[in-house]
Amino acid sequence: MELRGPKVKDYLRKFMVEPGKNVRLKKYDTGWVRHETLKTTSDGKAKGLLEEMLEKDRAALAEAQELLAASQEYGMLIVLQGMDSAGKDGTIRHVMSGVNPQGCSVHSFKVPCLEDHAHDFLWRYSRVLPERGMIGIFNRSYYEDVLVVRVHPERVETLPGKLGPGSDGFWTGRFKDINAFEKHLVRNGTLILKFFLNISKDEQKRRLLDRLNNKEKYWKFSTADLAERQFWDQYTKVYEEMLSATSTDYAPWFVVPADYKWAARTFVAEVIVSAIGGLDLSSPKISAEQLKQILAAKKELETE
Amino acid sequence: MELRGPKVKDYLRKFMVEPGKNVRLKKYDTGWVRHETLKTTSDGKAKGLLEEMLEKDRAALAEAQELLAASQEYGMLIVLQGMDSAGKDGTIRHVMSGVNPQGCSVHSFKVPCLEDHAHDFLWRYSRVLPERGMIGIFNRSYYEDVLVVRVHPERVETLPGKLGPGSDGFWTGRFKDINAFEKHLVRNGTLILKFFLNISKDEQKRRLLDRLNNKEKYWKFSTADLAERQFWDQYTKVYEEMLSATSTDYAPWFVVPADYKWAARTFVAEVIVSAIGGLDLSSPKISAEQLKQILAAKKELETE
Repeated sequence: MELRGPKVKDYLRKFMVEPGKNVRLKKYDTGWVRHETLKTTSDGKAKGLLEEMLEKDRAALAEAQELLAASQEYGMLIVLQGMDSAGKDGTIRHVMSGVNPQGCSVHSFKVPCLEDHAHDFLWRYSRVLPERGMIGIFNRSYYEDVLVVRVHPERVETLPGKLGPGSDGFWTGRFKDINAFEKHLVRNGTLILKFFLNISKDEQKRRLLDRLNNKEKYWKFSTADLAERQFWDQYTKVYEEMLSATSTDYAPWFVVPADYKWAARTFVAEVIVSAIGGLDLSSPKISAEQLKQILAAKKELETE
Repeated sequence: MELRGPKVKDYLRKFMVEPGKNVRLKKYDTGWVRHETLKTTSDGKAKGLLEEMLEKDRAALAEAQELLAASQEYGMLIVLQGMDSAGKDGTIRHVMSGVNPQGCSVHSFKVPCLEDHAHDFLWRYSRVLPERGMIGIFNRSYYEDVLVVRVHPERVETLPGKLGPGSDGFWTGRFKDINAFEKHLVRNGTLILKFFLNISKDEQKRRLLDRLNNKEKYWKFSTADLAERQFWDQYTKVYEEMLSATSTDYAPWFVVPADYKWAARTFVAEVIVSAIGGLDLSSPKISAEQLKQILAAKKELETE
């Protein structure tokens, strides 16, 4: 992955989860602007700086996507995870608006239906993977099957008893399945980037209260959000185990400081743009035979 | 359909195909800017004027899409058809970039595969219809099955002999199937808009030559484009019959003058924005029970 500028490299080193690392989330700052890397440039001016970067990244992303589509070599899968109100929807809107929607498909996964549960847990996600040339975004993903489902194991699909969540190595088995699935995708030309939008419990409270204090936002509130907040510590634990087990050199996790939305969005945009840049794509080459056809077609059309 | 401003209404009246009308394409101007409706305002300034309108429409569309997603009442299906190089891809890019890609899915249909051909001709399209709250764009569509397939009837999927393209009323049967299919979608909350990007044969020649004269665009050229150009008159005829048979009050066709790309794009954007505006959408209403839950949640969170 080729990255632009020494600062971005710094952020990446700090926020990319090294394969095999034992993640402790309390060691990750949820407020990027308080972070030492930015302190040198900010003095309170970080917001403007990062918003400018985001603007540039959006333009770069629109161009990068065109090349991705033209070259038809790679597809791209972007996974977004985070606690309720961590900013997944907003990140998609702010980072990806501007990209040609013909080259970008977003899938938001809701509660699985009976048909989903009648299949293996990766099935419903694999049906909507991005094809070559496309950017596919998963707003929540198969990682929910080792997160919300792990906090609430009664939500695991019906499985033969000895294969169920009570069995030995059930969750590590899922981690291995996910790693193998992603390895398979990478081997077949999909670039995978995974972002965990990391907010603090206090920031979630602020965001939920914001919805509850604003009549215009009432409809965005779900009582389920508050119910899940009770499980904050359990979620932290299962996120840590998941991040530790599934950040690989071929499909890395980034723990994105997400208390400041504009900071999180810029970080995500930077990583995506850098990653596509690193693919070293070019427009399709024309063969000698194709060139012959093109010149013949030109002649035919000109003398029509 | 509620439309903004008297001028736009004029365009719509002129370019929307009245149900039951017998369409003759030679009566449709392919160069909108030469059109009488615009003459009054243009004097060569039409381009700037329309580009400004497009800019406004894009912003309005981003807002309209948010409301469409929030209200979860209607879905929207936009069908784009046109001869090769008519500007379908460019229209999608220019009109829809800016819309949140989470609320917009684009499907480009290629040559059908064996599995598609083993089903009825609507099958592969119906699998990717937009859900409620979404804008779905079909870049080519089931209309290909009464256009390219009608010009080349050997491309019809294998059917029992007496049901094949040689049978009586085969094509009118397809028109009826399409109308019934669209009626069904409309009855179930899908708003349907269909655009035929109408270019002249001369303009197609210019665009194809442009690709053939520019090494950077060589890879965009397909010999198939030139081959299909030989069938221009047949295509005109099948387009006319299709437009005459399938423009309905619930799913109208617009014959978009498309020789000037910026004019075509603005026209399409205007129609979409106006149509969503006409749905009179609002954010979801909160029930008394929900309000009670919201106030309880607020209290719980504040005293946490």
